[in-house]
Amino acid sequence: MIHIGFLLFPKVTQLDLTGPAQILSRVPDARVHLVWKDLQPVETDVGFSIVPTTTFDDCPQLTVLCVPGGFGMAQQLNDETTLSFLRRQGEGAKYVTSVCNGSLVLGAAGMLQRYKSACHWAWRDYLPRFGAVPVAERVVRDRNRISGGGVTAGIDFGLALAAELAGEAQAKLLQLAFEYDPKPPFDCGTPEKAGGELVARLRELQAPRFRQAEALIEQAALAGA
Amino acid sequence: MIHIGFLLFPKVTQLDLTGPAQILSRVPDARVHLVWKDLQPVETDVGFSIVPTTTFDDCPQLTVLCVPGGFGMAQQLNDETTLSFLRRQGEGAKYVTSVCNGSLVLGAAGMLQRYKSACHWAWRDYLPRFGAVPVAERVVRDRNRISGGGVTAGIDFGLALAAELAGEAQAKLLQLAFEYDPKPPFDCGTPEKAGGELVARLRELQAPRFRQAEALIEQAALAGA
Repeated sequence: MIHIGFLLFPKVTQLDLTGPAQILSRVPDARVHLVWKDLQPVETDVGFSIVPTTTFDDCPQLTVLCVPGGFGMAQQLNDETTLSFLRRQGEGAKYVTSVCNGSLVLGAAGMLQRYKSACHWAWRDYLPRFGAVPVAERVVRDRNRISGGGVTAGIDFGLALAAELAGEAQAKLLQLAFEYDPKPPFDCGTPEKAGGELVARLRELQAPRFRQAEALIEQAALAGA
Repeated sequence: MIHIGFLLFPKVTQLDLTGPAQILSRVPDARVHLVWKDLQPVETDVGFSIVPTTTFDDCPQLTVLCVPGGFGMAQQLNDETTLSFLRRQGEGAKYVTSVCNGSLVLGAAGMLQRYKSACHWAWRDYLPRFGAVPVAERVVRDRNRISGGGVTAGIDFGLALAAELAGEAQAKLLQLAFEYDPKPPFDCGTPEKAGGELVARLRELQAPRFRQAEALIEQAALAGA
């Protein structure tokens, strides 16, 4: 049995986990776990709640440990219960992975020292605070660390991981089953393609939430130093 | 307030709804509802459960009605409670939409007669049983019906709908925020690109579930004839 566990925390960007979970759930012999401190429904960033399937205490040793991101990520950076769970699972996991700014939580747990990692573009520059090496790609692999970029990169990440776990032929079946032949309506999915004006507008809109998060990143980086 | 409601039914392919819900939840003044018969958690195809936010009885008039798909779709085709809810909401909704084979449920409710519609490629040929005109595109619009193709097409659909609801500039911001610059690992996301062998293998794997569904499609088509 391949145990694939996603950390499910309050205000997670739910697509960070629901994208790759969709793909990985169809890998033969795979079982997807959503792991949190207890089994109460966890409110996602979209407003609806998802029910954890297991807890930190009851979770079996995972084959794949995955930390998704979102604005709620910041509250996990200094949560010793969460960080201990990640470190404990990470020791035995075959793959230690993340999507979006979930890589910062792995970093805060001290699990990305001198590892290359992906991250959401707007959060990528914080990776070095945790000793990690940011890479501007959709999917990044460094030894047993595999990471996806921002949000929708979780689907590319999920397929890459499916190929790793079950072979390329299986991953191709899944890409066909999920009709993954994307046609983005615009060509602005990276800051480079979007251009300075769009990037500036988004940064301005999100500035208050980044300021809050930055304080917590700072605190976590100092604690780990 | 823009009320965007997704039908949340057992064994839904959860990415069909979690993809577009992610995007549409960030449209200004939008509120995402997950609607089901009661408020108990609903088990998705991945195994984990999502909690409905409202019920058929309590749901406000939706601006956007959206039916996702999945193998669980087949049980909805002959469920008069579900179909009545869709018809009632469809009368007042500004947009009547679907992702994946959710279009078959709209069809069974009699809501796609002489409308062009998208559908998951493997289910597309059933659309004419409900008087709908299948179109092999990621996002299809016909009057106020907007539909997405299979599973991951829900993201393209979500961005197209965001542009419709809030303008192109807003949709571009969202595409950047969700870093939607896809890089599929393989080039096999449609049956044409995947080729006959891969398509045949997937059809063979899924044949038992399709046979079950076909009987229910047949029943619904006869009931609506």
